[in-house]
Amino acid sequence: MSISTTAKTLLLATSKETYAYRRFGKASQCPLLLLQHFTGTLDNWDPAMTDALAKERDLIVFDNAGIGRSTGVVPKTVHEMAEHVQVFLEALEIQSCDVLGFSLGGMIAQQIALNNPNAFRKIVLVGTAPRGGTDIMHLDKPSLGRYFQDRSLKGYQILQKVFFAPSEASQRAGGEFIRRLDERKDDREPASGPDVAQAQLAAFREWEVQKGEPFADLRQIRQPTLVVNGVQDEMIPASNSYRLVENLPNAMLLIYPDAGHGSLFQWHESFARQLLAFLASDSSQAPY
Amino acid sequence: MSISTTAKTLLLATSKETYAYRRFGKASQCPLLLLQHFTGTLDNWDPAMTDALAKERDLIVFDNAGIGRSTGVVPKTVHEMAEHVQVFLEALEIQSCDVLGFSLGGMIAQQIALNNPNAFRKIVLVGTAPRGGTDIMHLDKPSLGRYFQDRSLKGYQILQKVFFAPSEASQRAGGEFIRRLDERKDDREPASGPDVAQAQLAAFREWEVQKGEPFADLRQIRQPTLVVNGVQDEMIPASNSYRLVENLPNAMLLIYPDAGHGSLFQWHESFARQLLAFLASDSSQAPY
Repeated sequence: MSISTTAKTLLLATSKETYAYRRFGKASQCPLLLLQHFTGTLDNWDPAMTDALAKERDLIVFDNAGIGRSTGVVPKTVHEMAEHVQVFLEALEIQSCDVLGFSLGGMIAQQIALNNPNAFRKIVLVGTAPRGGTDIMHLDKPSLGRYFQDRSLKGYQILQKVFFAPSEASQRAGGEFIRRLDERKDDREPASGPDVAQAQLAAFREWEVQKGEPFADLRQIRQPTLVVNGVQDEMIPASNSYRLVENLPNAMLLIYPDAGHGSLFQWHESFARQLLAFLASDSSQAPY
Repeated sequence: MSISTTAKTLLLATSKETYAYRRFGKASQCPLLLLQHFTGTLDNWDPAMTDALAKERDLIVFDNAGIGRSTGVVPKTVHEMAEHVQVFLEALEIQSCDVLGFSLGGMIAQQIALNNPNAFRKIVLVGTAPRGGTDIMHLDKPSLGRYFQDRSLKGYQILQKVFFAPSEASQRAGGEFIRRLDERKDDREPASGPDVAQAQLAAFREWEVQKGEPFADLRQIRQPTLVVNGVQDEMIPASNSYRLVENLPNAMLLIYPDAGHGSLFQWHESFARQLLAFLASDSSQAPY
């Protein structure tokens, strides 16, 4: 059993909610906070990826309000989700950390970076979009709806379809991914229900709304940032990642071939290597 | 003095032309062929970059027909330029190698890969575009014309302006780059004149012409490919790199921040590290 699949779930009571999280990996001064995707819980991080990261970094995986065993209700805006993360970090007495925000988690990471320029040392944004981005999580469009409306797909099988590209190789990687998600036997989080999905979809709709000059906010995020996507991401298309690096002043872009929304899980060895090299660089600039 | 600035220029007589080239670096089974940009000669490769690559790879830098001391006339199509490279490789008895094609050189590399699927083991395309790409080398547009028409800019000063982003940091990197280009004192190639520029611009215009289904050719290039660009490339905008990875079946994309056409020279340490890791990977897939 890996460190990721045996790490105990912890509960942290704060002034706002009690948050479920796990912390594991190599002790280091600057922890790496992982912010999760649409409907995902602590159990939705690929242990192959987090095991590789944990060899060099102190990882904190986190359930936002209303997810898993975290109390409260799921907010309908990214802004409120960001506030929960900030309260959690404060209660943990973490003034600054690195962050890996995947999908919805990447939007939350951007919002926190805008709220508090000192919250993060370095930022990794995977399969995500800037505020005002395009075609964010429209689960009813044909390329996704055919899976979400397919009653024959059970449990994680839908993840295999929507997180991976249609090719045989990518679907095989998807099959391995969902098997890895099942490796944790005990101390699992309750899965998210339709109420979670509904609230988070409302947050995506709100995030799609442009406010003021397109992408101007991004210019305030000056941290070294690594932006990653799969070239065939149907959930949050790669064009959103292009817009991120075109507007963030200090961001590298990595696009993976033959991969969808879950590029970080499909290419977990490469992704972990690139991410660790990026975080380990002592440059104030993003290239590593 | 570095290995790049002291390597002797060699002349290879072939059935077609006599080609000027230099070969240096660590002996290895698979050489790395470098194909140069618009008007560039052997002397336009940044020695900081080639020195770093030469520590691990056997490099061959090459002047196409009519460039530097290579005989013949500069062709007006990428296709004819590709033929010269193929004749040169054949005369050197190289059946297969890796290739780094920068700008015009990246187009030539694509054409060779289409002509002969066995010519290359791995492909690196920097600051380049697929056939049918957009806004390729329109030197008269305002963002470039203001430099090309500025009579106060002498020699390499124009390169500093058009290969680098306008920021102070990028312009500083550009200044260091052009100083490095001057490090070679002896055995320099004659610089390209307006006739070279004119023929190569004709080749860019021909390359912009779409033939058949957009980008369909790219799907035949199955080699692991690394595509690199600066996010502010005004000469061949990064959107062309997006189209490359969206259509090449096995390609990674790396986009550098605060960088223009010469991203590989501005970020030479990072670029050399990424390129060497990509070439050293024994996977048949692009991610490394």
